[in-house]
Amino acid sequence: MILVVFAHPYPDRSSANRVLLGGLEGVHGVEVRSLYDLYPDFNIDAAAERWALERASVVVWQHPIYWYSMPALLKLWFEKVLTFGWAWGPGGDALRGKRCLWAVTTGGDENDYQPDGLHGHVFGAFAPVMEQTARFCGMEWVEPVVVHEARQLDSDGLAAWAAAYRARLVELSRWEPLLDA
Amino acid sequence: MILVVFAHPYPDRSSANRVLLGGLEGVHGVEVRSLYDLYPDFNIDAAAERWALERASVVVWQHPIYWYSMPALLKLWFEKVLTFGWAWGPGGDALRGKRCLWAVTTGGDENDYQPDGLHGHVFGAFAPVMEQTARFCGMEWVEPVVVHEARQLDSDGLAAWAAAYRARLVELSRWEPLLDA
Repeated sequence: MILVVFAHPYPDRSSANRVLLGGLEGVHGVEVRSLYDLYPDFNIDAAAERWALERASVVVWQHPIYWYSMPALLKLWFEKVLTFGWAWGPGGDALRGKRCLWAVTTGGDENDYQPDGLHGHVFGAFAPVMEQTARFCGMEWVEPVVVHEARQLDSDGLAAWAAAYRARLVELSRWEPLLDA
Repeated sequence: MILVVFAHPYPDRSSANRVLLGGLEGVHGVEVRSLYDLYPDFNIDAAAERWALERASVVVWQHPIYWYSMPALLKLWFEKVLTFGWAWGPGGDALRGKRCLWAVTTGGDENDYQPDGLHGHVFGAFAPVMEQTARFCGMEWVEPVVVHEARQLDSDGLAAWAAAYRARLVELSRWEPLLDA
């Protein structure tokens, strides 16, 4: 099963993320959990989240970039769900061997993400926080999906990204498990 | 005025951060806002936060490192307080010219923060998210204060860090403003 942990603070106002998610409809074995719909009051049900994670072989963190990282509720999800003894530390093997895909939309273009650009760094400079969170839990980090200038894309551009995203998840779902369960 | 935006999810259980804050007592013109005490329900009063920021010439983000970055409530603070037209974008000059200091405690030592260490990267690899948030708002990023292995420090070690932190803030408070207000 592929678990898409979706974190958009204003899911109704999303355009790009909604199209990306729509592209996953009908893909076998995809479960989407929209954190801001599930937990508008930030009271995360950690047991429910862990149960979903345990059933997954691929974990996707999908969100728009807010201040160079994940929206606050996804950060809280890390803190409440990925706990000592479950996700890391002695006995904390629940996520070991799963694959982790970071799928994000940004408001800038590639020129903005340059040392001399608006955001002062290449986009990959902002990835270690996410990447190392996955790795610390024993997950395999796969090449992220990064949709730049999401608000400027027209419907054809969005549709192409949605198709690519869908194909990526289908491909990941076909990989052999890394470890015997 | 120096504004210390303090974000510890369990302020009562903090040891290192409490000592660091204690070292600031009596320093002229320091205001501490403890986000988890002020907003246990995550309902940030953005107007109150902005008013405190407007009066400051130095902004400190002090927190323990949680999953290689800021605790969730500080991330939410970025999203709710640092808004378009106030902190960035046209007319968004409220923070321009202020200095920003990142003051953090970690659970690891310097060996853990190496490419072949437990955390897979030098500590500075996790800084761009914070640094670029400050710079995007026109703030000057100064050299961070990073207290490694905070839980392992004995009282002498903590006291030395508290004195260094206090001295750093006193030094920053004496700098000339970057811009005429």
